[in-house]
Amino acid sequence: MSTAESPIRVACLQMEPRIGEKTRNMARTLAMIDEAARAGANLVVLPELCNTGYVFETREEAFELAEPLPDGLSTQAWLEAAARHRMTIVAGITERDGESLFNSAVVVGPKGYIGRYRKNHPWGAENLFFEPGNLGVPVFQTPIGRIACAICYDIWFPETFRLAALQGADLLCVPTNWVPMPQQPRDLPVMANILAMAGAHSNSMFVACADRIGHERGQPFLGNSIIVGQTGWPLAGPASFDREEMIVADMNLSDARRKRTLNEFNQLLRDRRTDMYDEMLGAQARRGWY
Amino acid sequence: MSTAESPIRVACLQMEPRIGEKTRNMARTLAMIDEAARAGANLVVLPELCNTGYVFETREEAFELAEPLPDGLSTQAWLEAAARHRMTIVAGITERDGESLFNSAVVVGPKGYIGRYRKNHPWGAENLFFEPGNLGVPVFQTPIGRIACAICYDIWFPETFRLAALQGADLLCVPTNWVPMPQQPRDLPVMANILAMAGAHSNSMFVACADRIGHERGQPFLGNSIIVGQTGWPLAGPASFDREEMIVADMNLSDARRKRTLNEFNQLLRDRRTDMYDEMLGAQARRGWY
Repeated sequence: MSTAESPIRVACLQMEPRIGEKTRNMARTLAMIDEAARAGANLVVLPELCNTGYVFETREEAFELAEPLPDGLSTQAWLEAAARHRMTIVAGITERDGESLFNSAVVVGPKGYIGRYRKNHPWGAENLFFEPGNLGVPVFQTPIGRIACAICYDIWFPETFRLAALQGADLLCVPTNWVPMPQQPRDLPVMANILAMAGAHSNSMFVACADRIGHERGQPFLGNSIIVGQTGWPLAGPASFDREEMIVADMNLSDARRKRTLNEFNQLLRDRRTDMYDEMLGAQARRGWY
Repeated sequence: MSTAESPIRVACLQMEPRIGEKTRNMARTLAMIDEAARAGANLVVLPELCNTGYVFETREEAFELAEPLPDGLSTQAWLEAAARHRMTIVAGITERDGESLFNSAVVVGPKGYIGRYRKNHPWGAENLFFEPGNLGVPVFQTPIGRIACAICYDIWFPETFRLAALQGADLLCVPTNWVPMPQQPRDLPVMANILAMAGAHSNSMFVACADRIGHERGQPFLGNSIIVGQTGWPLAGPASFDREEMIVADMNLSDARRKRTLNEFNQLLRDRRTDMYDEMLGAQARRGWY
């Protein structure tokens, strides 16, 4: 029976890249992708900068490890895996474009290269190595549906979710390298998970976050990969703080569109008061208030 | 010693208004305000429509219960309490302005009437009784600092937090009548609390939510009043689902400005990519995508 529904199985691969060990890191991503394929995943999300590691000491180090898209070896390996497993893969990668570096996500599918996203909000020392993203928040038409990407600190900005949802994205894929935030209470989800849940709920959009674990040059990472449904509640995870693991969830991407309607009066995205926001946010931006 | 710090004590008064019983409801708010004053509160937040109740059966019923601002009896009573206790009060009220009704919050201080906020995002049958807010998200300069208001469904829209924070608000006061959301897991905070935490964290702004409890004409309410710090973590609450109670927290409003700086590179509000948002959100609004 043919239907308009879009059921998919999403896997987020929580792993531990090691800085500079590209061959080892790529082998680990490919092994975990194989595992996800065996679990029946249609879409796999890998962490931020998963081929190179994160804590660069110099721009030269980052530059040496970076690759052009889609010709670099890492993307070519993921393309081969996507074709072999007939799946879509979203992976964080250190991208080189001429003399510029970007903290990017590459999107590949069974039929080839689909596109790239470049992190719009650089965090900490990333400001020393990377250019801020210059592609906006593109929505990719993939074999499994409309997906957009965000990377780590991007989800601290609710505009990221909005830009994806308002362009029709059903699922936001988030390769990330979350770091601990101060004052985390033990009995509450990590703040990054709270931001993912709030963004999913407020936009009726699925959100799939693949984080890394481990320490790198003194920087600890957080794990807690999570897949959130369009209602804002977790479908899988949060994963552990400290183990490599795969989390898997089934979702019907069609629900992201259908269930934006909350009752006979309210639809989340249409209820936005754009008459007010546009004028006020523009005015405040011009006045420079904060 | 004179300092530039702004320490205050905030109380959110979780109560159960009864539909149509204005005299009884007002007496209850005034008794709880007295209790908050004894606890040393400088600022008190009361629930949405706390003087009238929420589930109107007809527009005529709502109209009869509504009052003009600031001349209505409810506001006058809160003004007297604010003067007597030398405190600021934010209270949800059914406002009548000519032939129009608004779901409003009134802000009064020791020296008199400060201003009003009108709910921008009407929920459910409110669309039958109330006009959508037409005052934007005003920020009030009060004796204790810069505060803004939002009411219930308003916090489903991250633009609400942004508009307040970008105009310099240090604290968002949220009179609310939260209703249960589907699929609430037992081991996670209610979604309204998650939205408050995410909004506080992403904007480095304190958020104080006073909810109601009980049932009204078949509609259950949620309690779970909460006061959230500028880091996004609860300072007090969540309160119970089903008991009238006061939650109290001390906060230094100066922290809302100081701690927006996350590290030597990042400041939450300045890191916004307004170059990209303004163009893209405007373009998407024109294209009508959702």
